[in-house]
Amino acid sequence: MESLRARLREEKLDGYIITGTDPHQSEYVAPRWRTREFISGFTGSSGIVIITLTEAYLWTDSRYFIQASIELPSCYTLMRSGTEGTPDPWTWLYEYATEGMRFGVDSSTISIAHFSELSSSLKEKKAELVASDDFLSPIWKNRSDVPMTPCEEMEEEYAGKSAHEKLESIRNVLRKRNLRWTFIASLDDIAWITNLRADDIACTPVFVSYLFISLTKAVLFVDERRFDKDLLRIVRKDFSIKPYESAAESLSSLAKGPGYFNPDRVPEIFSSALSGKRNEKGADISVLMKACKNKKELEGMRLAHIYDASAYVSFLSRLDRSQIYDEITISERLENERKKIPGYLGPSFSAIAGFRENGAMCHYKAERGSEKKIDGHGLLVLDTGSQFRFGTTDITRTLFFGADEPTEEEKRDYTLVLKGHLALLSLRFPKGTKGFHIDAIAKQYLWKYGENFFHGTGHGVGCRLSVHEGPQRISPAVIDVPLMPGMVLSDEPGLYKENRYGIRIENLLAVKEDMKTEFGTFYSFETLTLVPYEKKLIEMELLTEEEVRIIDDYHKHVYEVLHELVDSDVLPWLQDATSPLHVNRIYS
Amino acid sequence: MESLRARLREEKLDGYIITGTDPHQSEYVAPRWRTREFISGFTGSSGIVIITLTEAYLWTDSRYFIQASIELPSCYTLMRSGTEGTPDPWTWLYEYATEGMRFGVDSSTISIAHFSELSSSLKEKKAELVASDDFLSPIWKNRSDVPMTPCEEMEEEYAGKSAHEKLESIRNVLRKRNLRWTFIASLDDIAWITNLRADDIACTPVFVSYLFISLTKAVLFVDERRFDKDLLRIVRKDFSIKPYESAAESLSSLAKGPGYFNPDRVPEIFSSALSGKRNEKGADISVLMKACKNKKELEGMRLAHIYDASAYVSFLSRLDRSQIYDEITISERLENERKKIPGYLGPSFSAIAGFRENGAMCHYKAERGSEKKIDGHGLLVLDTGSQFRFGTTDITRTLFFGADEPTEEEKRDYTLVLKGHLALLSLRFPKGTKGFHIDAIAKQYLWKYGENFFHGTGHGVGCRLSVHEGPQRISPAVIDVPLMPGMVLSDEPGLYKENRYGIRIENLLAVKEDMKTEFGTFYSFETLTLVPYEKKLIEMELLTEEEVRIIDDYHKHVYEVLHELVDSDVLPWLQDATSPLHVNRIYS
Repeated sequence: MESLRARLREEKLDGYIITGTDPHQSEYVAPRWRTREFISGFTGSSGIVIITLTEAYLWTDSRYFIQASIELPSCYTLMRSGTEGTPDPWTWLYEYATEGMRFGVDSSTISIAHFSELSSSLKEKKAELVASDDFLSPIWKNRSDVPMTPCEEMEEEYAGKSAHEKLESIRNVLRKRNLRWTFIASLDDIAWITNLRADDIACTPVFVSYLFISLTKAVLFVDERRFDKDLLRIVRKDFSIKPYESAAESLSSLAKGPGYFNPDRVPEIFSSALSGKRNEKGADISVLMKACKNKKELEGMRLAHIYDASAYVSFLSRLDRSQIYDEITISERLENERKKIPGYLGPSFSAIAGFRENGAMCHYKAERGSEKKIDGHGLLVLDTGSQFRFGTTDITRTLFFGADEPTEEEKRDYTLVLKGHLALLSLRFPKGTKGFHIDAIAKQYLWKYGENFFHGTGHGVGCRLSVHEGPQRISPAVIDVPLMPGMVLSDEPGLYKENRYGIRIENLLAVKEDMKTEFGTFYSFETLTLVPYEKKLIEMELLTEEEVRIIDDYHKHVYEVLHELVDSDVLPWLQDATSPLHVNRIYS
Repeated sequence: MESLRARLREEKLDGYIITGTDPHQSEYVAPRWRTREFISGFTGSSGIVIITLTEAYLWTDSRYFIQASIELPSCYTLMRSGTEGTPDPWTWLYEYATEGMRFGVDSSTISIAHFSELSSSLKEKKAELVASDDFLSPIWKNRSDVPMTPCEEMEEEYAGKSAHEKLESIRNVLRKRNLRWTFIASLDDIAWITNLRADDIACTPVFVSYLFISLTKAVLFVDERRFDKDLLRIVRKDFSIKPYESAAESLSSLAKGPGYFNPDRVPEIFSSALSGKRNEKGADISVLMKACKNKKELEGMRLAHIYDASAYVSFLSRLDRSQIYDEITISERLENERKKIPGYLGPSFSAIAGFRENGAMCHYKAERGSEKKIDGHGLLVLDTGSQFRFGTTDITRTLFFGADEPTEEEKRDYTLVLKGHLALLSLRFPKGTKGFHIDAIAKQYLWKYGENFFHGTGHGVGCRLSVHEGPQRISPAVIDVPLMPGMVLSDEPGLYKENRYGIRIENLLAVKEDMKTEFGTFYSFETLTLVPYEKKLIEMELLTEEEVRIIDDYHKHVYEVLHELVDSDVLPWLQDATSPLHVNRIYS
């Protein structure tokens, strides 16, 4: 910290901002860019650090308040984002700034849009935002290198389209809009366009790179040593390869004429190369192409879910619920079943297994040493996912443990969450519907009981790519993108009763064309996930006939797809878990 | 038309825009401002006219395509808004304009915001938008005067707050924001603030006026002859009164220092008087105060609905469905029952009674001579409303006529609309929920069957004011205003099967605080409307137990409230119409 402050004084700066992201604005970052953790010791996945000449501040959200207060050294002030009276870091900076002050930020880890916005705001106070170097490198001993895991091809049989075809689709858009080039910093878009995958970021099979595409050429800025000879030959058919580090310099000469880029993803370090007045800005052209999975990608996603489900039901059937597990061993048991599956590459995110009150923390991660024992009565929220060669999965099931019966409240709550989950997955909706229009469909039953959850109901999911992928989302936030056929989304309502228990039920769904009527085109969802719900937690009295039918049909389908894939010891459990719900009520 | 063109040539203009609204941007206008009708002969309630030196165009929406094609003289081109290939009038004008062209518009009938937007767009083409006089007056023989119906007081017992208190609330907002004045052109806001009502616009009890409010005074620009002596004395306690026509001139000297106005409601004619750089713009300060009804206003709305329902059920019980009515006589029969009720002032909008295929036109209005006979099997959509001294109602019921039974399709469709209607009125929702979050709640059941309707589910309603009142709305459009306690909204899903039949079911609801839980504050709706649904059209098989309970509870409440108010001949019908639905099903 003091060497950083010495550098600030040297550079005549009054403060330094550490955004904690990488030069691609990635959600998760490789160890090299865990700058927040290096400077503050805080290991959470989200937070902003601002160091002034005398003070140090870390902003993080409610998930991490406890963790941050333990991990941060005493010289830090913890800023609890979202709590009353706590300004966000940018408002805080605006208020802190006085005439003549100068603040630095590593220009490779802040987006062009964010830099420009923050800069204008500081200008109002006659202060300055300075696009600085990375001041941490000189003082960071044993810092990890830029990652350089080997690249491999996503076979066209799974990708559905060649890199060449994808380049041409992007060029067609450029031509239509009278643009000459586009520059892409977003790692999952680059992986999707190039049909290449690697292992640079844990659970997300991308490779650190930039991509420049003009009407006649494509330049991939990446370390060439990542490719074996054969792959290099293939990649060179469509791309010329230049060193990752040379991107900023090369871009100045490449980006001639009107072009296109996403100022929310491209870092400030490229801003002078991209400053042409006729350039247009917006979401990357590939974003919607990537979001709307093609036929082969959907086939891969389906296959991934079938394989994943066969591992999942094997795991469930082999659990002995009278035995005492803990939150970590239970995730490992599931992981071990998945490892047996052909094409399995690893988890798509760090597993969440939260028993009892731990399940009430949305993003809880059990740590070795403090993991909870699964001993006796309680609910376990198990949120996990897989990367396969051909697709990505993300599934949450809430399991009941205990020799006794679930309480009425547990059953009611599970059933209310399930009702919302089913209402969404069985929804038919008109073309043009956006995520914010239908978030309430999954929440309406909880609301009836004065209950609610405070995350969106669904996020987009990539195909052998990021488990969080935009632009589509189902949440109250106004994201102005309609749901379109081929988009894959999670359907994951939940309920979190602080210090008591959590519930979440998550399937992945694919948007599909459903019917055309005199009232227009309607879409619906294909359910990809194939794992039975926890019948013991279902309160039959709260279900309508239609809901019972939806559950029974789903379970029947799960059995039909899985029964020939699983080992024979799994079958009795599978049969029981997917048998019809018993309904024998007389209504009066 | 030719005298208008002569004037255009005289003023060196290439065209003239007729917005068809009044100097207050009212939705409905007094006869004096039916400029669209005067110039084109088209009598529909919505449309834009542009006259060039050689051509004439009228834009209107799908509701009026047939009517406009009949009414427009041959020199007009009908522009069908919303159909493929038809630009909206402003895009059309942009495309039509060439360098040096000048277009006039009466600066009293276009808002400051719209003038500015259109002006900038024409500037791009080096053309000019000219703030002109009203060119129609000199050529319009027997034009109606500015309306001058007598003003009367909305008694404080119904208004809930005195004009003085309302002025102080507005001044408090001005003080907090360091502003010195506000200027208001919106007629329903002026009526609400002053607690005055008149009869200037059919069905909407407002009076043509402007209102200036500073921290120390309030100036009402209105013809003083509207007030009798006693009322004048009362009004003068809080307002100085100046002539309506003097507003623009007076405002220049009144509007000193930073002030506030709504550029979407104040006409361009005031723009120079309001051009101060430190002025702030936005929705009128009174809009939210008016939208969130106070206790007395809610009491008045409740009373209006009880009285209105007693007339409505009398009308229904006295209908002899074997007799042949027509669309006009049936509205008159309802109106005649309403006229018997104390406090009834008249309809809150022009009644819609559409039988069979006419019901499939959302905004159908039966005209004497072409009204449809109600003869035999069919559905009647009856959308009507009342103004009372103490509140406003708006109700739609769909009635079945015919000696036979409704078809399965009619019953299914009615029941799907009803399910959506019930899902909304029984919804509980968290504080902060906005209308666009819950529009799908009322549409989800229709969507299941590939059906839909293309209007919002709900609009705001005033208290003895406009039957359409903002800002609250329940529709897919993103209106960034949360639903708040005291807001009154309609709940009116429908279904329109072209050339066959229409269905719409509408109650008014008031938002109320409902419960606080560990998950925050929840709101729900109080149902104001008290008229039974059409049981004969309900398909029991499609209802859940909960929906049956909601209907039975509602009907029971209707009976309890109304049975002591209606004449004894109405009682047997009321008892039958509100008796519980018969459910005797065995589910297996």
